Amino acid sequence: MARSARRPRGRQPLEPVAGNGLLDRRMLLGHSVLFAGAMGVGVTSSLASTAAEPLTDDPWSLAPGTTIPPYEQPSRFEAKVVRTLTNPNLEPRPSAARTPHHLLNGTITPNGLHFVIARGGYPDIDPNKHRLLIHGLVRQPAVYTLEALHRFPMVSRIAFIECGGNSAPFFSKEPIQANVQALHGLVSCAEWTGVMLSTLLEETGVDPRAKWFLAEGADAPTMNRSVPLAKAMDDAMIALYQNGERINPSNGYPVRLLLPGYEGNMNIKWLRRIKLIEAPVMAWNETSRYTILLPSGKAWQFFFPQEVKSFITHPSPGMTVREPGFYEISGLGYSGNGAIKKVEVSADGGQSWASAALQAPVLSKALTRFRTPWNWDGRPVILQSRATDEAGNVQPTRAALVAERYQPKSVPPGTPVLGEHFNAITSWAIDPNGKVTNVYT
Amino acid sequence: MARSARRPRGRQPLEPVAGNGLLDRRMLLGHSVLFAGAMGVGVTSSLASTAAEPLTDDPWSLAPGTTIPPYEQPSRFEAKVVRTLTNPNLEPRPSAARTPHHLLNGTITPNGLHFVIARGGYPDIDPNKHRLLIHGLVRQPAVYTLEALHRFPMVSRIAFIECGGNSAPFFSKEPIQANVQALHGLVSCAEWTGVMLSTLLEETGVDPRAKWFLAEGADAPTMNRSVPLAKAMDDAMIALYQNGERINPSNGYPVRLLLPGYEGNMNIKWLRRIKLIEAPVMAWNETSRYTILLPSGKAWQFFFPQEVKSFITHPSPGMTVREPGFYEISGLGYSGNGAIKKVEVSADGGQSWASAALQAPVLSKALTRFRTPWNWDGRPVILQSRATDEAGNVQPTRAALVAERYQPKSVPPGTPVLGEHFNAITSWAIDPNGKVTNVYT
Repeated sequence: MARSARRPRGRQPLEPVAGNGLLDRRMLLGHSVLFAGAMGVGVTSSLASTAAEPLTDDPWSLAPGTTIPPYEQPSRFEAKVVRTLTNPNLEPRPSAARTPHHLLNGTITPNGLHFVIARGGYPDIDPNKHRLLIHGLVRQPAVYTLEALHRFPMVSRIAFIECGGNSAPFFSKEPIQANVQALHGLVSCAEWTGVMLSTLLEETGVDPRAKWFLAEGADAPTMNRSVPLAKAMDDAMIALYQNGERINPSNGYPVRLLLPGYEGNMNIKWLRRIKLIEAPVMAWNETSRYTILLPSGKAWQFFFPQEVKSFITHPSPGMTVREPGFYEISGLGYSGNGAIKKVEVSADGGQSWASAALQAPVLSKALTRFRTPWNWDGRPVILQSRATDEAGNVQPTRAALVAERYQPKSVPPGTPVLGEHFNAITSWAIDPNGKVTNVYT
Repeated sequence: MARSARRPRGRQPLEPVAGNGLLDRRMLLGHSVLFAGAMGVGVTSSLASTAAEPLTDDPWSLAPGTTIPPYEQPSRFEAKVVRTLTNPNLEPRPSAARTPHHLLNGTITPNGLHFVIARGGYPDIDPNKHRLLIHGLVRQPAVYTLEALHRFPMVSRIAFIECGGNSAPFFSKEPIQANVQALHGLVSCAEWTGVMLSTLLEETGVDPRAKWFLAEGADAPTMNRSVPLAKAMDDAMIALYQNGERINPSNGYPVRLLLPGYEGNMNIKWLRRIKLIEAPVMAWNETSRYTILLPSGKAWQFFFPQEVKSFITHPSPGMTVREPGFYEISGLGYSGNGAIKKVEVSADGGQSWASAALQAPVLSKALTRFRTPWNWDGRPVILQSRATDEAGNVQPTRAALVAERYQPKSVPPGTPVLGEHFNAITSWAIDPNGKVTNVYT
């Protein structure tokens, strides 16, 4: 007979370490005999018919199958695992494509699902004709073909990129009911490979007057941003590969700037030039946008790092938790200031917290998967996650963030809420029917 | 004026650390002023026209661009970056699809390009109907739906999978002229996420008589292999996700067995059951195949780990090194027995060796990218790489491997060479014209 989550047998579940059924993360790590008692999620139908040998064959076990393609796509049964598009007909306005984190697991975002913000569509660049120019306050300007860039020493690093406007719906006065893709889908993570910008600047030389650089894309809107030269000398990369293959078209093919941890829009795609300069150019995207107007009337300008943040992907709004019993709560933590040091999870709206397990390797400025075992008793709960980075920064509450930085806005339903650098704790309520919703606490 | 690789100016290149121009790997890590002198790979055309502002716009900078798709594909200019197929029309024989490592960089293999061996095509499995049965010598058998598996604690790990028959062309008496995709393309690496098999076995319980388990797929040939139970209790995973998204169809959708470091064919795809047993079932794939007949007449059976190995991807056979000057030599190292400890590179056929830089993080049983700076003087060279793993295993020479384990065969051109567990050093010759070929030393 099969096991039922409604009727756990044998040993009692582990004692909770925090309110509403959160269990010790060490449960995930060992081979404790206590573990079996906490589980019991087997299928409730009888095993009798299928346990006999030979097994009953499904139709797909009785035919030769489908030809292996040269470049493979996900199963047709995963057709819903796609980015949501804000501008599918390419009207003359920006396009956003959001990553479906509620349908993914692990930390790598497949290239087909990496988020995109583009001011138009993507330029269809011929890599044999594309050039990267480095000029301005350099000893000797240089133009690089793709072939030339490939002769330089390369590095690879797994890094997240997050749009400065990710999670903007939380600036709404009332919580917006949408899934985690709509709420937090403008962050993704990939293994990027390319040439360090500092390597190229050793070749061109740097005039001591240079304190910033301008990065500019070859897209029609000529996206550009000013970046402190210190970032070039630290970890800026001229990226050529995304998860092993050449960068996808809408993420900057054939070459993009990677500024690990900095707001997404600075990671200039379709990169065509780097100009070393004395002072920022005051581009549209660093003045009219990406400048944070505070409630005090002052503003934060040139505020680059995406701050420490986390959110729960499983379970998350739009899902229904089927029945009481054991589940894994899981989500993503990250910080533009370094590695995640800890993520805590609460099931009682922040009254008590359990430390989540962090999936190794925990890498600086990369998405980090956290996991917490949880035994739901069927009563209402409010799930939250709170990340701390290695610099000691802790994710603030939403109330603290908006008091310091924002005036929450009421907007008509369906209107996008604008705002930048939202990194506060977000809260998912689960009602006795298992329905998950976005709430403010 | 642009820089020319043929006419290096300024400082002299770094002194070589090994024959034929291999440079110190630490050159890759710092910001040495010596570095600039060793380089000089700028484009040789004049900068005068393009350095002026405003820049000349390419056609793709003058139009709105292309719509962002829900699930993105690589650029149309990368149409050659595909797997090579041995059975594109699905005739009644096995199909192989090989990863184009000569066109990739980093360590992650995109899902569309992960290698495949399938005894037929792939079964088109409906995940809502698929079940995983665990039975045999267990306390209580269990059948799991995909939904049930998703409630268990999960883990993610970046791991390579390699076909036991990868690199078989090197068993040919004469070196086969083919590219690195054809020679070494049956190994790939992904971030796999799923439930540890040990977690499920804690739920079912294990009869003390159980010493092995049988893993069986739902494909028409019912692929099956016997695996020691110790591997289940160590690091075997019931994998559900590949690089964040659900596993691709030909790699086992919706569920596969991952046995990190073990020969690929044991990582059963389309997994439908695990049966705990006392002794191996002597399946076709562990008797007729994947048993190594030694020159002595004895045989190695149940020899599972893919041994320490490496190969150079850049440059590699089929490429032409354009001109003398600076290049990065780069490739992949891995071991089924743990992490890579070191990779050495030789440019003089093994007479002298330089330690390569290993790209962090260096993970156990995962592909590890190595890189070595190199200044080619235009004379003939023979490139080799030699990996050592953390267990102290060193990649053997081809001569030593075949003397111990194989009788090299002469086969007519075009005939596939069969053989398993080739992990010896391989050698790429570069002639004065820059042409790269596969040679035996």
